Amino acid sequence: MSQPFNNVVIMGNPADAAAVETVAVAVDHLCARDLNILVSNQLPAPSAPARQAAVEDAELPANADLVIAVGGDGTMLYAARYASQHNVPVMGINRGRLGFLADILPEDIQDSVDAVLNGDYAQEARMLLHAEILRAGETLCSGVAVNDIVIKRCETARMLEYRTAVDGRYVNTHGGDGFIAATPTGSTAYALSVGGPIMVPHLNAIVLAPICPHTLADRPIVISGQSVTEVQLVENHGADADVSGDGERIGSLAVGDTLRITAAADTVKLIHPPGYDYYEVLRNKLYWGRDKRDRK
Amino acid sequence: MSQPFNNVVIMGNPADAAAVETVAVAVDHLCARDLNILVSNQLPAPSAPARQAAVEDAELPANADLVIAVGGDGTMLYAARYASQHNVPVMGINRGRLGFLADILPEDIQDSVDAVLNGDYAQEARMLLHAEILRAGETLCSGVAVNDIVIKRCETARMLEYRTAVDGRYVNTHGGDGFIAATPTGSTAYALSVGGPIMVPHLNAIVLAPICPHTLADRPIVISGQSVTEVQLVENHGADADVSGDGERIGSLAVGDTLRITAAADTVKLIHPPGYDYYEVLRNKLYWGRDKRDRK
Amino acid sequence: MSQPFNNVVIMGNPADAAAVETVAVAVDHLCARDLNILVSNQLPAPSAPARQAAVEDAELPANADLVIAVGGDGTMLYAARYASQHNVPVMGINRGRLGFLADILPEDIQDSVDAVLNGDYAQEARMLLHAEILRAGETLCSGVAVNDIVIKRCETARMLEYRTAVDGRYVNTHGGDGFIAATPTGSTAYALSVGGPIMVPHLNAIVLAPICPHTLADRPIVISGQSVTEVQLVENHGADADVSGDGERIGSLAVGDTLRITAAADTVKLIHPPGYDYYEVLRNKLYWGRDKRDRK
Amino acid sequence: MSQPFNNVVIMGNPADAAAVETVAVAVDHLCARDLNILVSNQLPAPSAPARQAAVEDAELPANADLVIAVGGDGTMLYAARYASQHNVPVMGINRGRLGFLADILPEDIQDSVDAVLNGDYAQEARMLLHAEILRAGETLCSGVAVNDIVIKRCETARMLEYRTAVDGRYVNTHGGDGFIAATPTGSTAYALSVGGPIMVPHLNAIVLAPICPHTLADRPIVISGQSVTEVQLVENHGADADVSGDGERIGSLAVGDTLRITAAADTVKLIHPPGYDYYEVLRNKLYWGRDKRDRK
Repeated sequence: MSQPFNNVVIMGNPADAAAVETVAVAVDHLCARDLNILVSNQLPAPSAPARQAAVEDAELPANADLVIAVGGDGTMLYAARYASQHNVPVMGINRGRLGFLADILPEDIQDSVDAVLNGDYAQEARMLLHAEILRAGETLCSGVAVNDIVIKRCETARMLEYRTAVDGRYVNTHGGDGFIAATPTGSTAYALSVGGPIMVPHLNAIVLAPICPHTLADRPIVISGQSVTEVQLVENHGADADVSGDGERIGSLAVGDTLRITAAADTVKLIHPPGYDYYEVLRNKLYWGRDKRDRK
Repeated sequence: MSQPFNNVVIMGNPADAAAVETVAVAVDHLCARDLNILVSNQLPAPSAPARQAAVEDAELPANADLVIAVGGDGTMLYAARYASQHNVPVMGINRGRLGFLADILPEDIQDSVDAVLNGDYAQEARMLLHAEILRAGETLCSGVAVNDIVIKRCETARMLEYRTAVDGRYVNTHGGDGFIAATPTGSTAYALSVGGPIMVPHLNAIVLAPICPHTLADRPIVISGQSVTEVQLVENHGADADVSGDGERIGSLAVGDTLRITAAADTVKLIHPPGYDYYEVLRNKLYWGRDKRDRK
Repeated sequence: MSQPFNNVVIMGNPADAAAVETVAVAVDHLCARDLNILVSNQLPAPSAPARQAAVEDAELPANADLVIAVGGDGTMLYAARYASQHNVPVMGINRGRLGFLADILPEDIQDSVDAVLNGDYAQEARMLLHAEILRAGETLCSGVAVNDIVIKRCETARMLEYRTAVDGRYVNTHGGDGFIAATPTGSTAYALSVGGPIMVPHLNAIVLAPICPHTLADRPIVISGQSVTEVQLVENHGADADVSGDGERIGSLAVGDTLRITAAADTVKLIHPPGYDYYEVLRNKLYWGRDKRDRK
Repeated sequence: MSQPFNNVVIMGNPADAAAVETVAVAVDHLCARDLNILVSNQLPAPSAPARQAAVEDAELPANADLVIAVGGDGTMLYAARYASQHNVPVMGINRGRLGFLADILPEDIQDSVDAVLNGDYAQEARMLLHAEILRAGETLCSGVAVNDIVIKRCETARMLEYRTAVDGRYVNTHGGDGFIAATPTGSTAYALSVGGPIMVPHLNAIVLAPICPHTLADRPIVISGQSVTEVQLVENHGADADVSGDGERIGSLAVGDTLRITAAADTVKLIHPPGYDYYEVLRNKLYWGRDKRDRK
C-alpha cells in the first residue's frame, strides 16, 4: 500500500527544551517507518536520521511531502510560512498543551502520527497575508504571515496616527497604539486581545483591528479576503513605525510610506489527525463552558 | 428616453410626524414626473396620488419597480423585508439625519431622487436572514430580517442558557442575556453594542454574538453566510425566550425547540443616489475622526 | 473558653439538592458542638436540631450570632440581605465549587467551620445598595442588594432610554438594554459581563454601568459610595421597566418615576475561614493565569 | 479689594502655534491688571511682561500664586506636575477646543480669567501618582504623573509578562502589551482606550489596567487610592520595559526590578471658572447623547 507522505521534514524551536525532547520522541517513532526524514539543522542532532546540513529552513520543505513542526503555535507559524512557499502541508506536534495550530499532543504521537502517515487525516487550506512597504511606488520590503500583520511604534509613550483605505476607498484616520490585519487563523491570537471577533478558519475575510484606539467607536472591521488594504502614517509624526508578520520584523514604515496588505498568493495546508474539531479547540483554548462565576 | 422605474411605491412610518411630512414633500416632487405612484394605506392621504386602499404593505411592492421608504432605518428595514419578497429595489429617504440604510436627506430629495429616477444610481444586494422555530421537526413559525435575529428572555433578572451549533457541529453552551445573529448590514446595529465587529456590506458572513455573556471569553464569531446556525435553549430552564427579527416578534422558543438561522433565499436590493460611500456613512454615524479627547 | 458564636442559623436553597445534602453534613458536624442551631423552615428537616417552624427567613437572624448560608453565591446574597438587617455576620459553605462569597468547600467543613467557631476567622463589612422607586415624591417600593440594582425592560426588542444624575447633577441620557448599579461585591457579577471594572471589596465606590449601550462611548462610571444616583425613564416611551436587586424583583419604573440608589444604612459582615484571600478567589473564579492561547 | 492671585506664571507648549498665539492674547489681557506676570522662558517673548530667563519651568511656580497653562491637556499635565510640587494651583486655557483639564476657551479668556482673578472660581484637588523603580531595594529613578504611569516594552512584537501585587498581596501574572495605573483624572485618557472605567475626579481610587491582555478575563481593577501597587517583570524575558508618567519617560524596568506606584504626597489644585461641570465636560468630550446610529 502506498503511503501519502514519503519525504518528511521536521522543524522545531531549538531554544525550547520541551520541543527538542518531543522532536527526539517523534524522530524515534518516525524512524521505525520507511520514510526519508530530514531534520532542521537548527535542532540538536537526534540519534537516527540523516540531515542535510547545508539546507536552510527556508529551503528545507522544497522536496518534502510533509513538514512536521514540533513546538507551540509560534513554531507552526514559522514552519507554515516556509512550507506554504513550496505548497507542502504542515502538521504540528505540541509540547505539552494543545495549540490552535499544533494539535497533536506528545502522548498522542504514536496514534495520531501513524494515522496521518497511513492516510487517515483531514487537510485544510488557510489564508496567509502578504504585506509590502511601498515608498514612492517602489517596494522596500515585504513579508507573509499566517496570523497577522502588525504596525506598532517603538516610541512607546506616543500615539500612532494612520489612515486606512480598502480597495482604494478611504476608511478612517485612526489614533492609537497601532494596527492589526489578521487572517481567520490569526483572529484568535493578538487580534482577539484588542477586541476583534473570532472568525472561522475557512472564512474568506480579513479583520482590520485598531490597537487601543483613541476613539472609542473605532472598532474592528471585517473585510473581504480579496480586498486590498493600504495603511499610511499621518504626516505630522516624525518617528517610524515597526511592521511585523506573525511577530517577526518585516520593516519600518516612515511617514508617506504605504503598507499594502493582501491575501498571499499561496495558502498553507494544515494536516489534522482524525477527530480534529475546530470548535473543540476553541472551547478548550478559551475555557468556554468553564467560567466559575455564579449568576442566578 | 425610457426611465428605469415607472411604478413607485411609497412607505413610511405613520407615527413619525417628520416622516409623514417628508412623504408629502416626496410625493409632491414625484407627481411632477410621469410615474404611477402608490402610497401605503398606513400613511395619511397626501394631496395628489392614487392609492390602493385594499392593498396591505406586505403586497404593495408586488407590481412595483421601486419602493421608496421614508423614515429612519427602522422604516427601511420594514420596507426591505417586504420588497425583498417581490425582488423590488428599495431606496430610503431619511427625515432629518443620515441613516445607515436611508441615505437621502429631505433637502436632497430633488437632486438625489431625480438622479435615481433618471437612471443615475448604484444598486447593491444585501443578505437577509431567515429564522424558523422548530419543535419536534416541525416549523412553528418563521421570519426574515435585514439586520438581525435576536433571542432574549422576558424574565429580565435571570440568565438565558443556550447551545449553539454551526453546520451541525456543536460550538458552545452560553449563559447570558441572549443571542444575536446579524448580517453585515446589522453589524452596525444592535450587534455593535454587544461588542461585535463591523462587517462590510458585501461580505458573505454572519456574526453570532452573545449578549452580556457570563463567560468573558465568550466572544462574537463570524461564520460563513452559507452556514446553518442552530440554537437550543438548555434543558433546565422553564421560561420561554422571545425571538425577534429586526425588532419585530417572530415567536417563542421553549426548551427543546431549535431556532434555525440561515441566509434567506431572497436578498434586498438597495438603491443609492450617486456618490454613495459606505465608509463615509460609517465615519459620519460613528463620529469617527471627531473624538475630542486629547492624547499626546 | 468562650466561643464567639452560640446561636447559629442555617439557611440554604431547598431546591438545590447538593445544597440540601451539604446542609445535612454541616448540621451533623455542628451538632457535635455546644451550640443553639436553628435551621430555616424552608429546608427539609435534617435529623438532629431543633427548628422554629413559625419563623420566616427574614426574621430568623434576629437572635442569632451567626448565619451559615449553604449553597452558591445566590444563597449568600439571600442570607446576607436578611442578616444585614440584624447586624449578624454571615458565612458561606458552597456545594461543590468555590464562590465569590461562599468560600468554604464541603470537604473543608470540618476544618474551616471549626476554626471559625473557635474564633479563628476574618470578618469584613461589605456595602449594600438601597433602591427606592419614587413617584411624585412618594416612595412606591424599595429594596436592598448586596451585588447590584438592575433596570431592564420586559419588552425585549425595544431600547430603554433613561437619564442619570449623581448627587443632583445631570450625567447623561442613555439608550440601551438597561442599567446596573453595582457594589464592589457585585462588580464581579453581572456588571463584569457588561464591561464594568473589578473593584476591590473594601472600596467605597459604586459602579454605574449601561447594559449594551447604543452609544459606544457610554462607558461604566465609578462614583463615590456616598453619592446618590437617580435614574429616570425618558418621557416618550410607554412601557414600564423592571427594577431588581440581586435578581429579585423590587418593582416597576414608569415614565416620570425616579429610581434613587444609595449605599444602604446597614452593611453585611462576612466571616471567612483562616487563609481567605480575595485575589486568590479572583484568580480562581476568572481562570487567571490559565489562558491557553499561545502568544509569542 | 484684595485679589486672590498676585503672582501669575504662564506656561505653554512652544511648539504649538495655536498655543503660542493664545499665550499672547492671555498675556495682553493679564497685563491690563495689576499682577506680577512671569512667562516661561520656553515660550517666544510676548510684548509686555518681564521674564526670568534663568528660571527653569520646574522652579517657575516656586513664588507664584497661580499657574496658567496654555495649550491642550498635555500642557496642563506638564504644568500640573511642577505646580503640585510648590502647592500652587493651575488653571488651563485651551487653544481651540475644550480639554478635560484645560477648560477655558480662547474666546472666553476675558470673562473666565477675569472671574477667576476676581475670586469667582472653584478649586479642587486631584491625586497624582508617584512611581519609583527599585532594584535590590534601592530607588533607581522616580517620577510623578497626573494621568497615568505606564509600562510598555520597546520590542514591539513580543508580549510583556509581569506580576502585580497590591498592598503586599499577589494579584495576578499578566501577559500583554503592558500596564497602566491611572488616577481618576487619567481614567478618561489612555486607560479608557484599554477598557478602563471612567472614575469621577474626587474618587480616592486608582485603576490598574492591562494593555491588550492575552487572557480575556484579565480586566481592569479599581483599588483604593491608599494602596501600594508593585509590578515586577517576569523572570524569563530579556528585554527591558519602558516606564513613563503622563507620556514622559521615567526609566527602564529590568527583570527583577520592582515598579512601586502610590498616590503622590502632593496633589494638584485645579482652578475652574464659574460654571464648571465635570459631567458636562465628559458629555462634550465623549460625544455622549450624539450617537447617530438608529435603533428602534
